[in-house]
Amino acid sequence: MTALAPKTASTAASTITPEAHLRVTLLLEEYGRLLDEDRLEDWVELFTSDCRYEIMSRENRDLGLPLSLMLCDSKDMIYDRVYSLREANIYNIHSDCHVIGPARVVPTAGGFEASAAYSLYQSDQAGRTRLFSVGRYFLTLVEAPEGLRIAGLQVVVDTGAILSLLATPI
Amino acid sequence: MTALAPKTASTAASTITPEAHLRVTLLLEEYGRLLDEDRLEDWVELFTSDCRYEIMSRENRDLGLPLSLMLCDSKDMIYDRVYSLREANIYNIHSDCHVIGPARVVPTAGGFEASAAYSLYQSDQAGRTRLFSVGRYFLTLVEAPEGLRIAGLQVVVDTGAILSLLATPI
Amino acid sequence: MTALAPKTASTAASTITPEAHLRVTLLLEEYGRLLDEDRLEDWVELFTSDCRYEIMSRENRDLGLPLSLMLCDSKDMIYDRVYSLREANIYNIHSDCHVIGPARVVPTAGGFEASAAYSLYQSDQAGRTRLFSVGRYFLTLVEAPEGLRIAGLQVVVDTGAILSLLATPI
Repeated sequence: MTALAPKTASTAASTITPEAHLRVTLLLEEYGRLLDEDRLEDWVELFTSDCRYEIMSRENRDLGLPLSLMLCDSKDMIYDRVYSLREANIYNIHSDCHVIGPARVVPTAGGFEASAAYSLYQSDQAGRTRLFSVGRYFLTLVEAPEGLRIAGLQVVVDTGAILSLLATPI
Repeated sequence: MTALAPKTASTAASTITPEAHLRVTLLLEEYGRLLDEDRLEDWVELFTSDCRYEIMSRENRDLGLPLSLMLCDSKDMIYDRVYSLREANIYNIHSDCHVIGPARVVPTAGGFEASAAYSLYQSDQAGRTRLFSVGRYFLTLVEAPEGLRIAGLQVVVDTGAILSLLATPI
Repeated sequence: MTALAPKTASTAASTITPEAHLRVTLLLEEYGRLLDEDRLEDWVELFTSDCRYEIMSRENRDLGLPLSLMLCDSKDMIYDRVYSLREANIYNIHSDCHVIGPARVVPTAGGFEASAAYSLYQSDQAGRTRLFSVGRYFLTLVEAPEGLRIAGLQVVVDTGAILSLLATPI
């Protein structure tokens, strides 16, 4: 399943209900919290089995270039990446803090298209915090028996390529 | 129409409904997203024709000084500014990312008074991100045929005067 | 009353209503806004008389160490601290800006457990802004005649110990 960054709507009034908007907000909240708490295995469970998770620069997206900074086209592939992280980093050398803005939510046949701006801070073991990345999530969400799940996530980053990016979910 | 920064309420419980709060949240979301996507002409459409859009420092507001960093007292004047930006900047030399906090919303006769804290990051073409401005939006929102529109917006910035501020909406 | 950082839930769907979630969001909004506006005496009124307000590092929390960066175990103790701040700082030498992310909310017998990530910026009188702290609020909220009040707040900071931390609520 391909996650296309949805075209942003015109300025027409949204018809999303508070219940639907809250469901998406809570999914985004959980997404950020699980990463912040280093619960990567639980975070993977937010995705569908045939999901697509992609990190790309805003520049490449705007130019229509297919180049990704990271691309996983299944949940297994995301899990493999998490497993590698666990093997490579016995001690967690930084902690994340995601602050996510209000979500845009558009109902679809199978769930929702959504987007939200994020800021991601990383703190090292000495308690030094730096801004790691800002950008925007573009999500394709689908209804699953266990609740809303992520069928597609395109993370469009404003902040430039950072080597450690390849080792860290955003 | 003058946008006065509303007196913040006492700690009395709010009576705003989820539907009304969501409408304001979605307007703020759209406000930030349109700027982030460099859709300035669409962003202008969020304002009423006789709106007032003002950027001022927190210091000046607290001292009651009428000095603004930027002041537009009609939609046409905002549009002229956007048009100048388009002429002056053929290439967009930075990209914005707005992360907006939860909104305070108070119903009024014609719409809502609202406020929300924001953080605004700018990234240059090399992918370097810096914190550009933090502060708070104070909005006077009115019902219009096409939905909620901004009749007054006072942006009170904590971050000091920056020369390029005059060229960039916040 | 002790505020324990709640165990984060599994990825099970939440059953919180929009009305309940909004109440918690508005409390968090008010919490940040009152601090940002230097209305510390009003901010104290968000707490119950037998509250517990604690700031601790993430490292100490993860290690299970009881060491706090700040600990007040009653509203009077918080008020004393605010009073000291007022005596010590005749002129407010910085201004705060809290940008708070979406809240996790879990209903309890007497109210709610909630958490939310925050970023806190401080600007000095010359308008220079710096990131002061990022981390997460863990709140125990209870129903009171005047609305939701904070019975317990544990602020878990990612950003390391800063001397002025002891003088400033987060």
